[in-house]
Amino acid sequence: MSQEEQETRLEQLQEQYERYKQRPLDLSLARGVPSSEQLKLSQALINDTPITQWLSDDEIDIRNYGGLYGIKEARELFGSLMETSVEETFIGGNSSLHLMYAVLNHFMFTAEKPWSQDATVKFLCPSPGYDRHWFMLEQLGIEMISVPLTGKGPDMDTVETLVSQDPAIKGMFVVPTYNNPTGETVSDEVVDRLAAMTTAHDDFLIMWDNAYVVHHLYEEREVVKNILEACKYALNPNRVVQFVSTSKMTIPGSGVSAIGASVDRMQEIAKAFSKQIISFDKINQKRHVEFLKDRETIEAHMEKHAEILAPKFEWIDAILHAFFGEEERSHFVEWTQPKGGYFVHLTTQDGCAEEVVRRMKDIGVHLTDANAAYPYGNNPRDNSIRLAPSNAKLDHLEIAMEALCVCIELVTLEKIELTN
Amino acid sequence: MSQEEQETRLEQLQEQYERYKQRPLDLSLARGVPSSEQLKLSQALINDTPITQWLSDDEIDIRNYGGLYGIKEARELFGSLMETSVEETFIGGNSSLHLMYAVLNHFMFTAEKPWSQDATVKFLCPSPGYDRHWFMLEQLGIEMISVPLTGKGPDMDTVETLVSQDPAIKGMFVVPTYNNPTGETVSDEVVDRLAAMTTAHDDFLIMWDNAYVVHHLYEEREVVKNILEACKYALNPNRVVQFVSTSKMTIPGSGVSAIGASVDRMQEIAKAFSKQIISFDKINQKRHVEFLKDRETIEAHMEKHAEILAPKFEWIDAILHAFFGEEERSHFVEWTQPKGGYFVHLTTQDGCAEEVVRRMKDIGVHLTDANAAYPYGNNPRDNSIRLAPSNAKLDHLEIAMEALCVCIELVTLEKIELTN
Repeated sequence: MSQEEQETRLEQLQEQYERYKQRPLDLSLARGVPSSEQLKLSQALINDTPITQWLSDDEIDIRNYGGLYGIKEARELFGSLMETSVEETFIGGNSSLHLMYAVLNHFMFTAEKPWSQDATVKFLCPSPGYDRHWFMLEQLGIEMISVPLTGKGPDMDTVETLVSQDPAIKGMFVVPTYNNPTGETVSDEVVDRLAAMTTAHDDFLIMWDNAYVVHHLYEEREVVKNILEACKYALNPNRVVQFVSTSKMTIPGSGVSAIGASVDRMQEIAKAFSKQIISFDKINQKRHVEFLKDRETIEAHMEKHAEILAPKFEWIDAILHAFFGEEERSHFVEWTQPKGGYFVHLTTQDGCAEEVVRRMKDIGVHLTDANAAYPYGNNPRDNSIRLAPSNAKLDHLEIAMEALCVCIELVTLEKIELTN
Repeated sequence: MSQEEQETRLEQLQEQYERYKQRPLDLSLARGVPSSEQLKLSQALINDTPITQWLSDDEIDIRNYGGLYGIKEARELFGSLMETSVEETFIGGNSSLHLMYAVLNHFMFTAEKPWSQDATVKFLCPSPGYDRHWFMLEQLGIEMISVPLTGKGPDMDTVETLVSQDPAIKGMFVVPTYNNPTGETVSDEVVDRLAAMTTAHDDFLIMWDNAYVVHHLYEEREVVKNILEACKYALNPNRVVQFVSTSKMTIPGSGVSAIGASVDRMQEIAKAFSKQIISFDKINQKRHVEFLKDRETIEAHMEKHAEILAPKFEWIDAILHAFFGEEERSHFVEWTQPKGGYFVHLTTQDGCAEEVVRRMKDIGVHLTDANAAYPYGNNPRDNSIRLAPSNAKLDHLEIAMEALCVCIELVTLEKIELTN
């Protein structure tokens, strides 16, 4: 574009933005929240899944106290998602975040040799990642070290170098399937290297948050290699603690979560839980087993979610493509085309993301804070925006995306103008 | 009794004990677990309380993420139990223990000035008390100081002296209504003194576990003075954090728990929770509101529990009275006659409790470990036994109690014999 063309274009965009400002929208693409249409898929779980049997398969009265590990049929069901045995599976409440926090809290403060005895405790944080993981680490006083992602999981050269040298690094988070927000899935090679890598801290912990394990958008599914098996094979059986939940399968606020780990690791974690809870909600476990039945039924159920979700992802891609698909405009923004999960990640030009999100907020479209996917929200390049389209209707999504495209181009051109 | 009579009696008891040993029982009075008959009172909650309205009174979709504080109607309902306003009420998951642990964990490790920065952190533990409170404190590395109970709550002279002198004492537990296991309820005077006492640690915390707030056995009800009001009046509004749950109202494993505290205290606690969970199970909150409705309905529901429970307590009292009611035999054991709650507490002669519980175990009757109601299980007098009759059928209870009376007399006489 010539200088003149650029100025004309900038004027057009500024006019367009003023029009948005005069008639502000009221939309949010901020959080990965299932839509009403998706919630209806599990309505039967709430009102039409009668419990007729009070005894679990392992003869626990599901109404009463007891059964800290969860009922056997739930451990089987969640084991089928994590590829763990019943003995390697522990069932929690409605929140895998709570399980993660409790596990980290235990190793940090109440374990036999708590991490907090060291002057500094560090964690590797593949970024962009899940902001709630970072909030949790910050709350617990764990220093976060950002490591890059490659499109196939964390950059293992960087990870291996760091963990082999610094015993203060006690562990790392990984969202292995359809990472929040980049949508990438870790390769088999990454799984093997994570399982086998030499670590300066001898009881290294991988927090394996497999939140999107069956959250495929298409028939072509990305499936992660069994990390626990890989860890056992590498003689590091206690290295990984896996987490899954039904939050985005059934009812977000009333689902069931689970931990998968080696029997030794599991027993240590269960012992820590035994000081803070007698048992999680076994009736809800039973309801979920009745409703979700087995892995096959879960996958069929997830296809119904995909039918609702996939068009939203395709719409985002189509609109971004329409605005920025031509080669001469492709430098404004890059975006992901995930095969599953809940997010599209945008990489703007350096120094533009915060301003784009601010401009969107001013016209009534709420996005996740720019760069929130980085520890401490600290991304020196200021180029990361996360989109969560699940809870937006298609027509609203179109309006929001068009406004976003205007804001991206506007902010980028203004920045170029300023630099010149 | 003459020496000779005593020896004859001892022989009789030993023979009787041998007969038990030859035909061991299989009974437990170990934990305060509701019986099947009680669980049936809330069966409708599980299968026949349809949810027809997805929006809560404060317009939260009860199925989705969000609503960390709980839905308004649940906050109202639990506020009616704790005499707190909606703003002073926070709703948790199925476990008040979990809420207690999270609160203590926060003040210990993640608060602005965490207790763990001090070399030693201490808590007052009115004893005999609830063993799971002590397990929790021990797990968190908090040193426990046992303080005596008076029959009207903790011995306030001792409490006031200790907390005024030692800034390492950060707080204390109280089970205000029908204390586990002594059954006593704190008097208005104790409430006022707790609220107003001068503490060396300037942000003293009272963990007010009102687990048995509506768990009356008879029409004559013991009601505790409003502690939060008393704390506000004494200008210590943040001193108390109250806990209640429906575990022993509805379904023990699938109930709802709540916290009551000043708005400031509540917001601090909620902020800590916001790092570890998005929201608790709001569908279950709604179900409980539909089922329990209001305080009046709760009290009527609790009367049905009382009808089932009261005969068990009366049976225990009757059998103990039959064995040890005569003045000449009254020195063998003292027992409580609670007006509510779940436990009867026995005070044996010094040095007898552990042996009695061991003898009972050997004939197949499982009791809570002797002296478990003391911090670290450490009761120098070895005289404390807790009975939890709720889950025993009346005929089994009779058999167990007769065996217990035999064991108490046997162990006591053997001890006297040994001493002579």
